[in-house]
Amino acid sequence: MSDLPNAVHITEEGPREGFQIEKGPISTARKIALIDALSQTGLDRIQIVSFVNPKAVPGMADADDIVRGVTRKPGVAYTALWLNKKGFERALKFSDRLTNTGTIQLSASEKFLLRNQNRTAAQQLAEQHAIVEGYKAAGVPVERGSIMAAFGCNFEGDVPVSRLVALVQQILDVAQEHGVRLKYITLADTMAWATPLAVKRTVGTLRERWPELDIALHLHDTRGMAIANAYAGLEMGVTRFDSSVAGLGGCPFAGHQGAAGNVCTEDLVFLCDELGIRTGIDLDTLIDCARLAEDVVGHPLPGSVMKGGTLRRFRG
Amino acid sequence: MSDLPNAVHITEEGPREGFQIEKGPISTARKIALIDALSQTGLDRIQIVSFVNPKAVPGMADADDIVRGVTRKPGVAYTALWLNKKGFERALKFSDRLTNTGTIQLSASEKFLLRNQNRTAAQQLAEQHAIVEGYKAAGVPVERGSIMAAFGCNFEGDVPVSRLVALVQQILDVAQEHGVRLKYITLADTMAWATPLAVKRTVGTLRERWPELDIALHLHDTRGMAIANAYAGLEMGVTRFDSSVAGLGGCPFAGHQGAAGNVCTEDLVFLCDELGIRTGIDLDTLIDCARLAEDVVGHPLPGSVMKGGTLRRFRG
Repeated sequence: MSDLPNAVHITEEGPREGFQIEKGPISTARKIALIDALSQTGLDRIQIVSFVNPKAVPGMADADDIVRGVTRKPGVAYTALWLNKKGFERALKFSDRLTNTGTIQLSASEKFLLRNQNRTAAQQLAEQHAIVEGYKAAGVPVERGSIMAAFGCNFEGDVPVSRLVALVQQILDVAQEHGVRLKYITLADTMAWATPLAVKRTVGTLRERWPELDIALHLHDTRGMAIANAYAGLEMGVTRFDSSVAGLGGCPFAGHQGAAGNVCTEDLVFLCDELGIRTGIDLDTLIDCARLAEDVVGHPLPGSVMKGGTLRRFRG
Repeated sequence: MSDLPNAVHITEEGPREGFQIEKGPISTARKIALIDALSQTGLDRIQIVSFVNPKAVPGMADADDIVRGVTRKPGVAYTALWLNKKGFERALKFSDRLTNTGTIQLSASEKFLLRNQNRTAAQQLAEQHAIVEGYKAAGVPVERGSIMAAFGCNFEGDVPVSRLVALVQQILDVAQEHGVRLKYITLADTMAWATPLAVKRTVGTLRERWPELDIALHLHDTRGMAIANAYAGLEMGVTRFDSSVAGLGGCPFAGHQGAAGNVCTEDLVFLCDELGIRTGIDLDTLIDCARLAEDVVGHPLPGSVMKGGTLRRFRG
């Protein structure tokens, strides 16, 4: 009935997704407390900050202090997001504390790209060559391709699967030209256009063309479809997901108010637990983190399992 | 890749689900305003009240006035819920205003049944015979079987599919003995134990045994799985769903605080629209109702699409 995997890998993005959009202000100490709590759940990769312009994203003005303040747990990779050379250079200064890896990134929507990063698709593709060389020169491994707005765009509409196929090919070409071997390609549903059927069709098409290519899903929940989309991914054998504890986050460039965060980590872990899919994450500890996240941001967050509870306690 | 249906039928249960659990008080006029607004969406079946003990459910103390006050739209069936003979007799008094139909109802959890209705499984089964005869005597068609706690129970744990098969057989036996032909059987995930995989396995097993039997799903969202479970149902060809506008509701007997309402109607309609599945419901009008529902209850409700918006406006 399905190709459900035995195990999945979840990258926690709640701190970065959340702190960049929450009005706050949230003290640096509280941000660190949430990250330190997440370190105790079994998560082994946590994106904790973005190195971006503090005028544009005031919630990340203390990114350096967050990186310095986190109590690093062995076995956990702490990562940062950057959008340009300046951000990358800030990340490099923390090579002892952050796991810096490079991404070849394209966008399925040129209009979103212009709005989000002020560049055309051709400019972005051309830049990737220089970016990859920059990573290589800095000794940063390039592990991932990523496609923004992979399922649709508020400014450009639906994305045909053929466009994604072309973009994956462009990413693989860049990687090959520079002799790097990507571990996987992330399809980011940046503006929450995906449906479970679109996930199945898209992943299925990419799998058919590149059977060995690992695909990751980054699914926003703006229209309530994220967990259904994640399940569709699981059924297609997807084993990598980004997610946000308590559903923290949202996209400041999505062009409308109701933009929601990534699929909720503890809801996704609950689903995996119930399906017998290993995550390596302790759900009860994670739920405590989700409640802490609500306390840190000072308002309710959208996660469901932290309110509804697990099923474990009801079983004999 | 799936057996997605061309069209589905959605029964709106938001008013009944919501008003029975909201602390309120909500004025009768506001309750009626929401029902009247829902009548304009294209929904053709709306459960508007429950006839229950007002001491146990104060939010339904004005059920009679609600039924009297609704502006009935031709083509819309307005229905009521009752749990005993007294409730049924109240419904019968409104035969001119309500579409009363009978249900043969069993529970997959005896412990839940004892708590919810203070009777054993054997007592409930025995009662169904008298109940069906009562419906026949009153000229009320018996159209539906229903199984509560079909996917699991907070008091009894997981429900094996074999138990559901036995319960469906019991329901069909009661129907046959009394010469009534059921249109469908509802599987109610009363305490939100279902996963998409459980929905697929359960519906698949029942379909294999009774290929002609129509199945309806009543899915609560306590653990955030409702829309994924609904999609799993769609993939198995399920064409009947209960749902609640804005996600109104919750179960007062579920035994914990975080119990959430039914799958959100407008999120389900959004999903169907995006999949090309006809519902007969206008999504924009429905979203207006969801916002009205929030205004009526006086606090935010869990629906996503009313916050995130549809995709229609972004398409060219």
